[in-house]
Amino acid sequence: MTELLRIGLLGAGRIGQVHARTIVQRVTSAQLVAIADPMPGAAATLAARFGVTQVTTDCLDIIRDPNIDAVMICTPTTTHCEYIIAAAQHGKHIFCEKPIALTLAETDQALAAVAAAGVKLQIGFNRRFDANFMRVQQAVATGQIGDARMLHIISRDPAPPPIDYIKTSGGIFLDMTIHDWDIARFLIGADIEEVYVQGGVMVDQAIGAAGDIDTHITMVRFVNGVIGTIDNCRQAVYGYDQRAEVFGSLGIIETGNNFPNAATLSTATAVQRDLPLNFFMQRYIEAYAAEIEAFVAAVTSTSTVPVDGTDARKALVAGLAAWQSYHSGRPVKLSEIG
Amino acid sequence: MTELLRIGLLGAGRIGQVHARTIVQRVTSAQLVAIADPMPGAAATLAARFGVTQVTTDCLDIIRDPNIDAVMICTPTTTHCEYIIAAAQHGKHIFCEKPIALTLAETDQALAAVAAAGVKLQIGFNRRFDANFMRVQQAVATGQIGDARMLHIISRDPAPPPIDYIKTSGGIFLDMTIHDWDIARFLIGADIEEVYVQGGVMVDQAIGAAGDIDTHITMVRFVNGVIGTIDNCRQAVYGYDQRAEVFGSLGIIETGNNFPNAATLSTATAVQRDLPLNFFMQRYIEAYAAEIEAFVAAVTSTSTVPVDGTDARKALVAGLAAWQSYHSGRPVKLSEIG
Amino acid sequence: MTELLRIGLLGAGRIGQVHARTIVQRVTSAQLVAIADPMPGAAATLAARFGVTQVTTDCLDIIRDPNIDAVMICTPTTTHCEYIIAAAQHGKHIFCEKPIALTLAETDQALAAVAAAGVKLQIGFNRRFDANFMRVQQAVATGQIGDARMLHIISRDPAPPPIDYIKTSGGIFLDMTIHDWDIARFLIGADIEEVYVQGGVMVDQAIGAAGDIDTHITMVRFVNGVIGTIDNCRQAVYGYDQRAEVFGSLGIIETGNNFPNAATLSTATAVQRDLPLNFFMQRYIEAYAAEIEAFVAAVTSTSTVPVDGTDARKALVAGLAAWQSYHSGRPVKLSEIG
Amino acid sequence: MTELLRIGLLGAGRIGQVHARTIVQRVTSAQLVAIADPMPGAAATLAARFGVTQVTTDCLDIIRDPNIDAVMICTPTTTHCEYIIAAAQHGKHIFCEKPIALTLAETDQALAAVAAAGVKLQIGFNRRFDANFMRVQQAVATGQIGDARMLHIISRDPAPPPIDYIKTSGGIFLDMTIHDWDIARFLIGADIEEVYVQGGVMVDQAIGAAGDIDTHITMVRFVNGVIGTIDNCRQAVYGYDQRAEVFGSLGIIETGNNFPNAATLSTATAVQRDLPLNFFMQRYIEAYAAEIEAFVAAVTSTSTVPVDGTDARKALVAGLAAWQSYHSGRPVKLSEIG
Repeated sequence: MTELLRIGLLGAGRIGQVHARTIVQRVTSAQLVAIADPMPGAAATLAARFGVTQVTTDCLDIIRDPNIDAVMICTPTTTHCEYIIAAAQHGKHIFCEKPIALTLAETDQALAAVAAAGVKLQIGFNRRFDANFMRVQQAVATGQIGDARMLHIISRDPAPPPIDYIKTSGGIFLDMTIHDWDIARFLIGADIEEVYVQGGVMVDQAIGAAGDIDTHITMVRFVNGVIGTIDNCRQAVYGYDQRAEVFGSLGIIETGNNFPNAATLSTATAVQRDLPLNFFMQRYIEAYAAEIEAFVAAVTSTSTVPVDGTDARKALVAGLAAWQSYHSGRPVKLSEIG
Repeated sequence: MTELLRIGLLGAGRIGQVHARTIVQRVTSAQLVAIADPMPGAAATLAARFGVTQVTTDCLDIIRDPNIDAVMICTPTTTHCEYIIAAAQHGKHIFCEKPIALTLAETDQALAAVAAAGVKLQIGFNRRFDANFMRVQQAVATGQIGDARMLHIISRDPAPPPIDYIKTSGGIFLDMTIHDWDIARFLIGADIEEVYVQGGVMVDQAIGAAGDIDTHITMVRFVNGVIGTIDNCRQAVYGYDQRAEVFGSLGIIETGNNFPNAATLSTATAVQRDLPLNFFMQRYIEAYAAEIEAFVAAVTSTSTVPVDGTDARKALVAGLAAWQSYHSGRPVKLSEIG
Repeated sequence: MTELLRIGLLGAGRIGQVHARTIVQRVTSAQLVAIADPMPGAAATLAARFGVTQVTTDCLDIIRDPNIDAVMICTPTTTHCEYIIAAAQHGKHIFCEKPIALTLAETDQALAAVAAAGVKLQIGFNRRFDANFMRVQQAVATGQIGDARMLHIISRDPAPPPIDYIKTSGGIFLDMTIHDWDIARFLIGADIEEVYVQGGVMVDQAIGAAGDIDTHITMVRFVNGVIGTIDNCRQAVYGYDQRAEVFGSLGIIETGNNFPNAATLSTATAVQRDLPLNFFMQRYIEAYAAEIEAFVAAVTSTSTVPVDGTDARKALVAGLAAWQSYHSGRPVKLSEIG
Repeated sequence: MTELLRIGLLGAGRIGQVHARTIVQRVTSAQLVAIADPMPGAAATLAARFGVTQVTTDCLDIIRDPNIDAVMICTPTTTHCEYIIAAAQHGKHIFCEKPIALTLAETDQALAAVAAAGVKLQIGFNRRFDANFMRVQQAVATGQIGDARMLHIISRDPAPPPIDYIKTSGGIFLDMTIHDWDIARFLIGADIEEVYVQGGVMVDQAIGAAGDIDTHITMVRFVNGVIGTIDNCRQAVYGYDQRAEVFGSLGIIETGNNFPNAATLSTATAVQRDLPLNFFMQRYIEAYAAEIEAFVAAVTSTSTVPVDGTDARKALVAGLAAWQSYHSGRPVKLSEIG
């Protein structure tokens, strides 16, 4: 592969648009050559913005196209497995948004297809590529804080997604905490052994009516004995709250939010600064670029991808265990799930 | 009581010395008139520093002294009940360090004696008088963050106490978390309903051998539905870590550590500041003064004390529930304890 | 001009490379079509990185090219006037790095040519497009701090430029403070009336031998009565120090440095964070994109450019006045210069 | 002097009250035995608060009292010289609020009397005893920032003093900047060589009518080549602004304001904290205690006082030079003054 990696994009929705822009504007070793979206006109509109000529409403057109090296799957979760399997069978490398599926059975099918085809599969756990979380991970991994003892993750969205999304998303533990299960493993460098959930509906009763909760704290214990908490809420009026800290025998590493500027205003009333960056499009713009650069680097070399299918599976297991803990009111071991 | 409140101090140990200094130097409406400590010379040494003339090795001497209006009980926990009961019977107002006792039975005996005598009893939950925690409480109580949803308390000591202390202290949930049970109730303005503990020995195996643990995170649920966590460790190498945050529907209030100065040094290596204040003697010096001022104000007026015996009892119940959760590995309701 | 703005780049050096990348990757309404650099191979190397096909060693080739709409002048300062004049005569819109020239006579010639041709000229005062300085300016302009009284600018480079650069740069007041003269006017919204310099050689005697100084504080007085200081040093071992504050009758707005991450590490030694972003390539990457987007927007519409030739002239006058103050040891009015 | 140092207080006004409280409540090696104030009742009122029995309306009563070891002069500036001279002649050690006098002649008379009597004289430059400024000084003195290059001091009061005070205070350079002249010397460890002032009336025209200004920035050059600025304003609506930074070859040390608590509130509008401590009574309460402890320690031992009459004289000279610079519009060397 001495030329630019030729990428086809499946799904021209919100995250598909982010990735399209990233590939075109930031990733010099790849090019976006085709876009598919079943909604009429969606692919064409996005393609026009970035000078992409090949558009289709059938994702399989791209998967089957022999001139395409890799696909980015940004379609709804329910379609991920089908496209992963098809793409693997056609020898395409795959970047897939999280989660792979809402069930272990489907996830395992997809992973088996990827393994059988020998293609590379990277999962869109973008936070691993964020400068703040990378710095925390580095401090832990290099021993700057000694032996880790405790972890705290706070991850709150500025506002809830539409109720229609919640109905099919798998709920908070699979659509939102899914990032935190992964970043927890990334920061501590060990798998989660057990979870215990306290949570409920505090933001909007309609979320409860849809079978979901909107607020929880989950206690996690890792296989290496580290204990920690994950705090999620679907609504934080002050913006996207994305913090983490790891406390260890030699110190603590903490990271806070990112802000649109470094200015402080002091008046007769208060000392204040502007709110943190509002949501993931602002907060993780650099991380999105870095994860795709890493994907392109991996599939155009002999390297492994930095976040693979087993990472996705482990996050799914944690999410399913969390639901079981929530419903049963007791701590649940991940080994009970699968 | 038109004159200065005449206070007798029981116990000339570490916290007794703090309170002696506070009464003499900071509390203009009271005077320290007598000091008792069973260790020969201890009372006299302390008395000499602050110009106190009346010393004894028998705490009951002070309790029985008709010229004394109030006693401060700073003796070992095992003696608190006896002295509370005796002081109440002699009509003395009482300031007692936490906890009252390690069992509910003893605690209830002491509270009954106080009630029967009609004296005032204040418990030494000094953190309620700290400017940082007061500001958090104020934000919650006045609605600045709307309806509270989640609480996080981090409370870590710089170094563990002596093993001998741990052997009789009731363990981490009664000697250390005791402050956090209380401050949690104070910040949220509601009682704790249930606790779930994850923890163990991460700092020193000798602590485990003494029957205690040194590190835990406890999930708490309050009767009003708020959920939260308390994070304790007996060793934080960077100093006394005393933080809290309450997240609500309209915002979040957070408070951090106090530092010896506001200076920042930037060199070719890092941007740095000096470590936070190392321990409670530095961190809570103002809070100790404020709690005694509040006690003196209450007993010299018709006001109630700001932290009373029922607050002590509730913290004890939470601590006992936490031990039960730790040993059983399941969530424990405080109503199971008493 | 219904199509993309066709830009030719003059100068493939450090800042030329920054702008080339920005146009290609960030500015969707323009395209980079040609690169000129007198050093053999320089233009070609840069062109290859960004898929530009037209390269030359003669800047005038680009200036004369009828297919090019606008030029970006990133050549050495001594050539700016010649290229501005030539470009204006060929009807090209011009983006020119600061300063236009080191003398008022040349600057005025260039501005006259621009005026005569009716083309648009924007100067590369990138800091006006930085989120931090924009926020300060906004606070001042919208009255959030009331009537401005005092300004402080701190602007220190991590390390000095090569001595060869210093020999022809016009010295610190024209190669470095040039940005601060402009940002001072931008923040206060008024022209500088008088300057008074204290400074000297504190970093490297070779800088003094080259006829320059490396450290100064300059007092400035604005025509509206605001007073302020500009602090420059060619070496700050902790990185690029870019701060400003404006104090007014209703408050103060301050802005600090930008950092590579928001993480804080606390150990037994200190509480620390990583150093600020090291230099302009990191610190102002977004500002460079924003200034070119603003240029493209202006020349493809009827708008005026946000930073024009008179802004460049005023910064030059301030720099010349500062040199005069330094040499004479007295306050110098800008009206003495021209 | 094997007993407590017996101190007499001259002046029961604002700062006299601060010092009275400090001696009584904080300084264990001294006692306040007498208070004098010419205003009828003033001394008695203050004396009653702190259990002092000896009161008078004639300061000389205290100065002549053979049972008093030291005097604290907290009377109006115009009386300082007379009382210093009288106290020295009566062999009393002296703590005197700044400045000694508004003229060099009087100051030198007072210093001569002190020298002749061999008593100790400490000046009330309290900021030298503040933890923040001490930390900055320590960083400079111990080489943590290498060779100092530049200093910035910001010192703004929350609100102007009464116009009547201003009329006799010597104006901003002698009543307010007097602290900054001293702290500048303290931080840099060198004397000021030259000053240049820009300033005027920006807060209240009545201040101008009283012959004073309310806002200035003064450029200072030290004899060791360090350059710096002092920024003063008589009104900062956000509170008492007391900052400093020293930049050197190996780094920078900066210090900010002190706050009543460490809490941060984030709402849908802004991230904010409470205003800094409002004025010197809050900000420097610990520094006031420390300076008196240092005075008592010096006069009860063979040590020299940490801030002496020559420090007061040097601050006065700088203030007089600043007025001359303001009126002449040119830099003024301190050697021109005396």
